[in-house]
Amino acid sequence: MSFHFAARTAGLRSSAIRDLLKVTEMSDMLSLAGGLPTPDSFPLPDLRREADRLLGEYGPRVVQYSATDGVVDLRRWIADHHSAEFGREVAVDGEIIVTHGSQQALDLLAKVLIDPEDVVVSESPAYLGAVQALELFQPRFEVIPGDEHGMCVELLADRLAQGLRPKLVYVVPNFHNPSGATMSLERRQLLARLADEYDVLVVEDDPYGAIRFAGTPLPPVASMSERVVHLSTFSKIVAPGFRVGWMVGPPEVMAWVARAKQAADLHTSTFAQLLLANVVAQPGWLDEQKARIVPMYRERCTALADALDTQIGPRIRFHRPEGGMFLWTEFDEVPDTKVLLQHAVEQGVAFVPGNAFTIDQRPDSKARLSYSTLAPEQLVEAVSRLSRALGTFDSSR
Amino acid sequence: MSFHFAARTAGLRSSAIRDLLKVTEMSDMLSLAGGLPTPDSFPLPDLRREADRLLGEYGPRVVQYSATDGVVDLRRWIADHHSAEFGREVAVDGEIIVTHGSQQALDLLAKVLIDPEDVVVSESPAYLGAVQALELFQPRFEVIPGDEHGMCVELLADRLAQGLRPKLVYVVPNFHNPSGATMSLERRQLLARLADEYDVLVVEDDPYGAIRFAGTPLPPVASMSERVVHLSTFSKIVAPGFRVGWMVGPPEVMAWVARAKQAADLHTSTFAQLLLANVVAQPGWLDEQKARIVPMYRERCTALADALDTQIGPRIRFHRPEGGMFLWTEFDEVPDTKVLLQHAVEQGVAFVPGNAFTIDQRPDSKARLSYSTLAPEQLVEAVSRLSRALGTFDSSR
Repeated sequence: MSFHFAARTAGLRSSAIRDLLKVTEMSDMLSLAGGLPTPDSFPLPDLRREADRLLGEYGPRVVQYSATDGVVDLRRWIADHHSAEFGREVAVDGEIIVTHGSQQALDLLAKVLIDPEDVVVSESPAYLGAVQALELFQPRFEVIPGDEHGMCVELLADRLAQGLRPKLVYVVPNFHNPSGATMSLERRQLLARLADEYDVLVVEDDPYGAIRFAGTPLPPVASMSERVVHLSTFSKIVAPGFRVGWMVGPPEVMAWVARAKQAADLHTSTFAQLLLANVVAQPGWLDEQKARIVPMYRERCTALADALDTQIGPRIRFHRPEGGMFLWTEFDEVPDTKVLLQHAVEQGVAFVPGNAFTIDQRPDSKARLSYSTLAPEQLVEAVSRLSRALGTFDSSR
Repeated sequence: MSFHFAARTAGLRSSAIRDLLKVTEMSDMLSLAGGLPTPDSFPLPDLRREADRLLGEYGPRVVQYSATDGVVDLRRWIADHHSAEFGREVAVDGEIIVTHGSQQALDLLAKVLIDPEDVVVSESPAYLGAVQALELFQPRFEVIPGDEHGMCVELLADRLAQGLRPKLVYVVPNFHNPSGATMSLERRQLLARLADEYDVLVVEDDPYGAIRFAGTPLPPVASMSERVVHLSTFSKIVAPGFRVGWMVGPPEVMAWVARAKQAADLHTSTFAQLLLANVVAQPGWLDEQKARIVPMYRERCTALADALDTQIGPRIRFHRPEGGMFLWTEFDEVPDTKVLLQHAVEQGVAFVPGNAFTIDQRPDSKARLSYSTLAPEQLVEAVSRLSRALGTFDSSR
């Protein structure tokens, strides 16, 4: 057999992280490589109670086909939730599409917006899943560097002034994956102004926003401009295994996305949407859930950062994030963290090398350390192993 | 705001059926237009019991991220199920991808296989959802007519002999939507031979195969050639609202599909996969479910067909299907069934005009009547209304 695949498959890189996760499934490996939420955070009793109610009392409609843009019970909650956050009325109909996780939102937006060679602006480092979803539709990436205050929007302003006309600008303003950075208020405001001035669509991906354990919440870019598609998800605040996310955006864009969604999978799981809607719509539930899980991430982040300071010290640099799951680090005298990773795996600890989060994948001195799935004492032990790996790495040079 | 959408959106037609379903939600409308399985068929008590067990006993992994190709519990059941059906060992790893409904299988296959202007062979009439999914990737459709024995594969043989080289051939061999036709054994064998001779990939979509209420089961094309991607789903035999389907195909194709799936939505709902796997893997469950629901469809099909014979008689022609949900009809002296539909809606009955299932959408005398969601006595009443609609239609000409 000889099959001929479409040209766009050239953009289908396998996820270095997914490949790496196979290694980290070895017993006794302490993994700082994953990006999974901590299983302790999942509200299993609430899910169990509501699943039983749905399948026992609601009748067959909970497992029947449903509307392409999402079940109305969930869209009502989403509209209320974002009306408060955006400071304007978000409509239940026309502005919201429920997706099979935020990842699908990226696929659908790319599908309806990107022709080959269209320019897409992305931060570097960038969320690999977004790069994968966009790359399939053969855009040209315009990479804008980020720092500890998020994408350097001033540089984007320069490029737009010089004539750059991107189809979309992709940003993760809260607790960025992998950089952990939170975009400053000034940069959010500038990005919104640029969107309006140059008639450019901003895709604001916010999977981690609810997991803020330090600093003050900042308003989303979607509250400052109407040229924003805002992506959100239940993956980190409830559980990821249901694959329920959503987007809120301009009706003209959402109308095309709805057609693409219909062609892609008809609609998102009716049962999962109703289940999650019933859980989160209980008065006060979301605040209680945040109060329960945010301290878990705060404690782990502190444990990892303190251990790195104590055990590795000046050899590693990082900014402490204000939320989320990731600590983005840079090593001194480690030109390629892929080589360090080999030593780390021998010592029983794993992380993701920084170049996995770049478009060009050139080796670098950076690494993403996730503190989301290990207990504080395990994080301390993981850092001990990492310190030993630095030792064997140095001896081998 | 002025957004510029990708060229491929030209292929994003809205589903005439979905648009029509809004009309049919009017109270007192008897709809023969939908394609929903009957809600009586959903095994709610089994789903409720297994959901409770999963969320109560299995721990947090049931709502955590999971593997892109599907949870192993479900892939094991799929492998066993199709090993028996295909008469060869289907591997748990490498040959199976669990999808967000069969619809997603079409999207993913189109994504990895179709470059603009590639040739795709489709039957006419065709499942509209497949046309929508494929059309987005800008193929050139080569349409092969079908009759009551399925796609006229002999005509495909002629075109291949004349030099046609399609990227894929899309068929629905069991109880076709909309035609109700079952592809004959001879045509299945010829299609498999052509796939091997011309090294062409066949996409065999089988959502309805389990709902056979007459005749003898025929082996799938996937049992006759390895150049087949076989699509299946729980939508009709368990419930559609979970959005769980799957495909079985050549490992080389599945490897690309897995990467596309990762970029599209990471994976299908962990919870939905485990729930359905636990329900269907109970010994004897699937046979009992079929024994319970197949007679529902048989009884309804007979009620509709008998009422059409009795009340409308020679004015309408159709073949009685051996399974599935649809009766494909042709009216005498009705050049455009869209016009008849307006009269029908006035009388309180709806159906889907035949041209909705064609690539070129030229008006025709055909109509798809679904018997899946109305009770037998409602079907008789629906036909009375259709008969009255024919009367007002005739008077208006």
